[in-house]
Parts: sequence; C-alpha cells; structure tokens
Amino acid sequence: MITVADLALKLEASFIGDGEVNLSGIASLNNAQEGDLSFLADKQYKNDILTTAASAVLVRKGEAADCPAVAIICADPYAAYIVAARVFYPEDDKKPGVHSTAIIDQSATVHSTAYLAPGVIVEANAHIAENVQIGPGCVIGKDVSIGKDSVLCANCTLSNARIGERANLQPGVVIGSDGFGNVRTEDGWVAIPQIGGVEIGHDVSIGANTTIDRGAIDPTVIGDGVKIDNQVQIAHNVAIGDHTAIAGCVGIAGSARIGANCLLAGGVGVVGHLEIADGVTVTGMTMVTHSIKASGIYSSGTPIMENGLWRKNAVRLKTLDRLARRVEKLEKSDKTNT
Amino acid sequence: MITVADLALKLEASFIGDGEVNLSGIASLNNAQEGDLSFLADKQYKNDILTTAASAVLVRKGEAADCPAVAIICADPYAAYIVAARVFYPEDDKKPGVHSTAIIDQSATVHSTAYLAPGVIVEANAHIAENVQIGPGCVIGKDVSIGKDSVLCANCTLSNARIGERANLQPGVVIGSDGFGNVRTEDGWVAIPQIGGVEIGHDVSIGANTTIDRGAIDPTVIGDGVKIDNQVQIAHNVAIGDHTAIAGCVGIAGSARIGANCLLAGGVGVVGHLEIADGVTVTGMTMVTHSIKASGIYSSGTPIMENGLWRKNAVRLKTLDRLARRVEKLEKSDKTNT
Amino acid sequence: MITVADLALKLEASFIGDGEVNLSGIASLNNAQEGDLSFLADKQYKNDILTTAASAVLVRKGEAADCPAVAIICADPYAAYIVAARVFYPEDDKKPGVHSTAIIDQSATVHSTAYLAPGVIVEANAHIAENVQIGPGCVIGKDVSIGKDSVLCANCTLSNARIGERANLQPGVVIGSDGFGNVRTEDGWVAIPQIGGVEIGHDVSIGANTTIDRGAIDPTVIGDGVKIDNQVQIAHNVAIGDHTAIAGCVGIAGSARIGANCLLAGGVGVVGHLEIADGVTVTGMTMVTHSIKASGIYSSGTPIMENGLWRKNAVRLKTLDRLARRVEKLEKSDKTNT
Repeated sequence: MITVADLALKLEASFIGDGEVNLSGIASLNNAQEGDLSFLADKQYKNDILTTAASAVLVRKGEAADCPAVAIICADPYAAYIVAARVFYPEDDKKPGVHSTAIIDQSATVHSTAYLAPGVIVEANAHIAENVQIGPGCVIGKDVSIGKDSVLCANCTLSNARIGERANLQPGVVIGSDGFGNVRTEDGWVAIPQIGGVEIGHDVSIGANTTIDRGAIDPTVIGDGVKIDNQVQIAHNVAIGDHTAIAGCVGIAGSARIGANCLLAGGVGVVGHLEIADGVTVTGMTMVTHSIKASGIYSSGTPIMENGLWRKNAVRLKTLDRLARRVEKLEKSDKTNT
Repeated sequence: MITVADLALKLEASFIGDGEVNLSGIASLNNAQEGDLSFLADKQYKNDILTTAASAVLVRKGEAADCPAVAIICADPYAAYIVAARVFYPEDDKKPGVHSTAIIDQSATVHSTAYLAPGVIVEANAHIAENVQIGPGCVIGKDVSIGKDSVLCANCTLSNARIGERANLQPGVVIGSDGFGNVRTEDGWVAIPQIGGVEIGHDVSIGANTTIDRGAIDPTVIGDGVKIDNQVQIAHNVAIGDHTAIAGCVGIAGSARIGANCLLAGGVGVVGHLEIADGVTVTGMTMVTHSIKASGIYSSGTPIMENGLWRKNAVRLKTLDRLARRVEKLEKSDKTNT
Repeated sequence: MITVADLALKLEASFIGDGEVNLSGIASLNNAQEGDLSFLADKQYKNDILTTAASAVLVRKGEAADCPAVAIICADPYAAYIVAARVFYPEDDKKPGVHSTAIIDQSATVHSTAYLAPGVIVEANAHIAENVQIGPGCVIGKDVSIGKDSVLCANCTLSNARIGERANLQPGVVIGSDGFGNVRTEDGWVAIPQIGGVEIGHDVSIGANTTIDRGAIDPTVIGDGVKIDNQVQIAHNVAIGDHTAIAGCVGIAGSARIGANCLLAGGVGVVGHLEIADGVTVTGMTMVTHSIKASGIYSSGTPIMENGLWRKNAVRLKTLDRLARRVEKLEKSDKTNT
C-alpha cells in the first residue's frame, strides 16, 4: 500500500488530484479496480482511460484532462510503469542460505550471500558467486560457474558452462548438453565426443525449457545482453552477438554465427555454418538458408489463406518453373507477332 | 483378468461366443494375442479382424460374422473400447499422503486427500485441493492454487498460476514463467517486470515440456476444456477459448486471443496481438499473421516436392511479382493484337 | 598430460617432430594454444594450420609439410581426433552406487554396478541394468526398464518405457508421456486412455528436452541406432526405423512411420498416419503431408528474401492459380493468332 503522493515522489512526477489516495496494485485500464494504479502508454488505448476504475493513472501531460482518476504526470508513462511495478511487486529476493536438502560437493565454492533452494545439487568444482539465487531442483554440473546476482528458477540443468553476471534463467532451461554430432560408419552412427563448453555473457536472460548445447571442441558463445525466449534450441558452436533478441521456438543449427543487435522472431530456423550480420531482423517462421551480409529485414514463407484457395494456389507451386517457361515462350511469340 | 461375460455386463453389451473366456489386456487387431481384447472401430481395419488372434473383439452388429473370436456387440466399438481400457488399465490412483521428502511451506494448505510424491516442493501460500496428485520433483510456487482431482506428472514447475479442477499436466510442464518482455534502451534491453498470473480453467490437459508464461500485467488465460499437446509455447497474455485443442510444437506469441472450439494443428505459429474467431481450424505449420474473423479452415505453406523440382520452383518465387507483371504486359499486347 | 609419442602409439600413427612434447587438451587450429592438440580434417581449414599455435596436429601425410608443430600422420585425421578426444576427455564414469537421497521402490531391481545420483526416484518394478548411470533428479516410473551401459543426464522423466542398451539421454528428456488423444463429445473433449508403451532399441541417443509419447494401445517404437537431437516431439505410435537421424525441433505426429536410415533436418514436421520409406532425407522446416515411397531428398518452403521483395512476391501467391489460368488463356489466344 502506497499513497499517490509517495509514489509520485518515487517517480519524480507531479500529480493532479488527491495525493492521499491509497494504491495497492497495478492493472490495465480495462481491468483495474479501486486501489489499482494503471497507465496510458500506447495511444490505441486512449479511450479506455475514460471508463477506467483505476484509482490513479500514469499519463502524459496532455492526457490528464481525460483521466477520471488521479492523474500522475510522466514524460514516459511506460518507463514510469516499469519503475512502479517494482514498487508494488518487488523481486522475490531470497535470504542467503543453503537449504538443508541441497547437496553440494565439497570441492564446489558457494558464496555466503547465495541462496540455494531445496533439492539443489552442486557438483565438483562448481562456483556460485555473490547473491546468486538457485531455485528448487536445479542441477549445477561440475566446473560450472555462475556470475553474481544471477537468478535460476526451478529445475534448470547446467553443465560445462560459464554464466555471466545478472543472468536470469527460467524453469527447465538446459545449458551444456551434448551437441548433435555423429559420424556415419559401417556400424551406423558414432557419436563425436563433445568436449567444448558454453560461455554466456552478462545480463543474459533465457526462457523456459530453452536448450543450449556445449561446443564440439571450441565453445558455444552467447554475448552480453542477449535475450532468449522459451523453447529456443541453440546447437553446438553457435555464436550469438551482444544484445540480440531471440523469440520463442527459434532453432539455430550448429556453428551458425548470429551478429549483434539482431532480432529473430518466433519460430525462425537458422541453418548451420552460416553468418548473419549485425542488426538483422528475421520475421516469424522464416528459414535462413544462407548467410545474410547486410542489416535489414528478411523473410520467407507464404501468406495464410482460406484452405480452399490455399489448395488451389499451392498446387500451382509444383509447376511454377514450368509456368515461368510458358510465359517466356509467350513473350517470344508475342515479339514475333507484333 | 475378467471374463467376456463380466466385461459385456460393464459395457451393457451382448456377445456371441463363450462368455467364460478370460481377458487380460487390450491390443490392436494385428498385435493382439490370446487373452487380449481388441476392437474394430474404423472400417479401414476390417480385414484385420479376419486374422486377429484376439480372444474377443468389440464390433458393430453387422461385423460379428467376420469375427473369429468372441464378438462383443456394441453400437460404438470405439466408445466401448475407452470404457474397457479403464477396466484393464485403471488410472494409477495414489493413496493420499505426503512423502517424507516432500517439502511444504508452513503457510501452504494441502488437502488431506492429496498425494505428494518424493521431492515435491510446495512454497508459501500455495493451495492444493482434494484428491490432487503431484508427481516427483514438481515445484509448486508461492500462491499457486491447484483445483481438486488434478494430476501433475513429474518435474513440472508452476508459479503465479491458478489451475482449475481435473487438470492433467504431463512431465516437464512449466506454467507461470516470465514472459518475453523487454524494452530497448541505450544500455541494451531492459526486462519489463512481469507481474500478471496464469488462470487455467477446468478439465485442461497440458502436454510434456509445454510452457505457459504469466501475463505482463493482466493474466494469461486458458479456458475450460482446453487440450494442449507437447512442446507448445504460450506467451504472456495469450487468451485461449474453451474447448480449443492445440497440437504439438505450436507457438503463440504475446497477447494473441484464440477463440473457443478452435483447432491448431502441429507446428502452427500465431503472431502476437491478433484475434482468431471461434471455430477456426488452422492446418499444420501455418503461420497466422493477421486476425481471422470467421470460422473455417486456414492454411499457409508450400507442398513437399522432390528436392530437384523444389529448387527449380522455389527460385521462381523470388521473381513471382515480376512474372505476374510480365503476364499483365502480355495480356495488354494480346488485346492489341486481336 | 600425454606425450606426442604416447598419443601416436594409441592412434597407431607415426609423427614428424619431437615425440617428447606434452599435450594437455584439444582445440581447433585457430583457438589452440601451447600444449594443445589440433587436427586438420576439412580442407577448407587448410590455411589455419599455417598459423596455429597448437603443439601437435593430426594431419594427412601430404599436409605435414605445412604444419608448424609436430605432425601426427593419420589416414583419417577426424577419426583420429575422435579417439584422441576420449584420451584427453574420458567419459565421466561414475563409481557404482546409489546416493543416499535416491528413493528406490522395494520392488524395483537396480544392478550393483549402476550409479544413481542424488534425488533419483525409481518406482515400482522398474529395472536398472549393469553400468547404467542415472543423473540427479531423474524419475524412473513404474515398470520402466533401462538396458545396460545407458546414461541418463539430469532431470529426465521416464514412464511406460523399455530402453535398450547404451542409450544416451540428455537432460530434460521425457519418455512415455500420454499421447494427445481426445474424442469430441457433447461435453467437450474426452481423453482417450493411453495404455501403450514406448520401446527404444539399442544405441539410441536422445537430445535435451525431447519428448516421446507412449502409444495409445500398441507401443511407440524407436529402432536401433536412432539419433535424436534436442526439443524433438515424437507423438504416440510413431515408429522410427534403425539408424535414422532426427535434428532439432522436429515434430512427428501420431502413427507416422519413418523408415530406416532417414535424415530429418531441423524443424521438419511430419503429419500423422503416413509412411516415409527407408533412406529418405527431408530438408529443414519441410512439412511432410503425404507418404514418401522412394528414397531421395524432399523439400518444401520458400526462399528467404529481403522483406520488401518478399512482400511483393508473397502477395502474388494469393492469386497464383488465377495467374496460371491467365497464362492458359494467353496460350490459347496465341495459338489462334499465329
């Protein structure tokens, strides 16, 4: 519970209305109830402010007149919302300590300020730095190191990895698993020993059930500030440049090199052993089959259609080359005729 | 072990043959051995009945003559099979109780009829209702509530979620993980606090390693009777209507709203912030890039071809617009000529 | 640490240079430092040998002259590398034994040479054979059997499954989960009891967070020597032939039958109830919508383009059938005119 006046102070903002109003949570304009703070960031929701039941709203100066509740005036309501969210919902900081059911190898080093939840397992020579929080059921394999202020949610499995500072790993993340390396022999496939590691920079976040394989020989590398969504698959020896963002269900095959400040939208597939330049955006479900040398936006795929129409059009793709040749022939004939 | 006569009684069915025959399991017509019950539901398998080694077969009246085993006559052999399956393979109901290695926060409430397997962790203020079964290694985060008669298999991770009654969660499910919300700043990406929850209705089933993110502010919502397959990714603030079914490997981006009674086939991708009407079917691996306003079947993608043909056709897609313009030109010329 | 001479002895190879040089690790030509062994397998890296800092390099006879370090002469440097890798990085064999926190049902059989890590759970009637290694947090469900010399990494969940010998399961694998079988009734979807198992041959490897469902009635079957990458989804009653390799993010729908010695590249989707012949290769992100009867390479999808060009071309796909009809009309007119 915080008053409008106290919140405005934290936001270094002014307000129009009763500063003594109490706020206890945050909701969208449409879902807010009495006691909620809301915000108007995107103009497409500007009509929602007229009918909101919120007790206070973060708005730009020009929008205060429409606000039926206390208006807190901000240059950037969305940025102010982000600050306010942490006021109402502080991060769930755990008290330092190791739960009695956690099992730590005697050769591992765990900083006294770290928190290890029930059932955590830390193997030989692992290193857990200051203020690291490790959720229930996580397995920290031998030689793994985790940089300070990192948070691991439940049931993550790490091996052969060095994680930077301020990492955020959602539940079910797997890092350092064996890459998919096999050679065909007369006796069938033989696994190639995977002996490389995974090196992850600072400020990296990794979504639920995402997997990142260890390198075959040299390491798999994830740069600083990289943001990875859920269920992404990153194969051995992939390199991802700083501040690149990768949305859900992306798959990146072995030894692909993705530049810095790239955006891979959901479901993108990247073929192995190619390079993507810095600043490239790839739209959803595109398959990247060759290197991309210049920044820009790239796409593949076909538009969604009603199924009947799609069937008629799709079948023509089987003879598209022939169709093009028929047009060429007509063009020649047309030239002769005219 | 059950006799044909006793099984027929349970199915309220009649039979032709020896009612004293003992049955001990169920198999398909082709794989059945002595002692097995089988069934003929789909006419495409009608020849398989002639040679089956099953000791009894669930058949429609007209098919009894072809049956070399005891024929149990049913109006709907498949429906009868579903009942019979539960006779031979009753659900694995666990005796109520909390395993000694489960760790339950003292502020959590766990009903006396619930079963908690070894290694289960239940955090502060969580609520586990009657007859809930929670498998080994599951982590039930703080404030999570699970409705009565729900079953969670092993190694699920739940946080920030309210689950309805009769839920079925397969192993490795993650619910309530942080959504992929980041804003770009001069210092790189900054994570937007994710403070919403996940609200899941009654009778929902969720497949292995599927992930459902918590909402950014308002909750992510899954309706009653929704069925979700394995490795599905549902992003923050998605809403899914009642009785919609979602097959494996589907990815749904943030704030997409899927209607009721929809079917999303395997590998479908849905872009964020769009709406799909009730009763929409989307075929496999289609990318839904805009809202769908009317029920019906929708598709995208190209047909599979032998690789050589595909290469020739695919390259033409790079100049399809030009091809269309060339045809326009020919049409104009043709008009002039004739 | 091993000398060049001793390593050459193990590889049955000769060497040119100082046999007393000590080697302590392996790295690629570019990343190698003093004390490292490297190798030149692929001619595309032949310039890298000129500047390598490696202390010894595995090379073919003709390449020894370019080698600035000790040259170890091999007929097949890559095969030699695989052997050498296991010299420097022996597999992490665990001493037999059951950790005190593992929980084993009294009806389960665990061989005395097996290793069970902390937190492992083994349920009723499960069978763990000789030399099996089971990582932390794995759940081995009732009646599951695991063949000798198999390795399970952390946090795998197995149920209703029989695993062959020498299996390798990476973290987060789920085997034997319920298939996605539901029938629509007036009351919504009703789950069809899933009573089949999973049968996995010998020498199978399965990648991180991959899921394999149990059969509906008959089992799901994975042949000998099958190699499966991360985040693959294999639905109920799929059958996969011996020595087939399946790359990351592939999804295979129910009852599909994949032949032996097939290759499914990353992101491929296979529709249910179809058959793929032996020796078929399917390129990345292809959707297999009908049976493939002959070995060969098959593909679908569209080429990646700069987004502006893609938009212009993609919109033409909506009227491709009409375009083809317009060309037909022009051809008729052309015939009349000439």
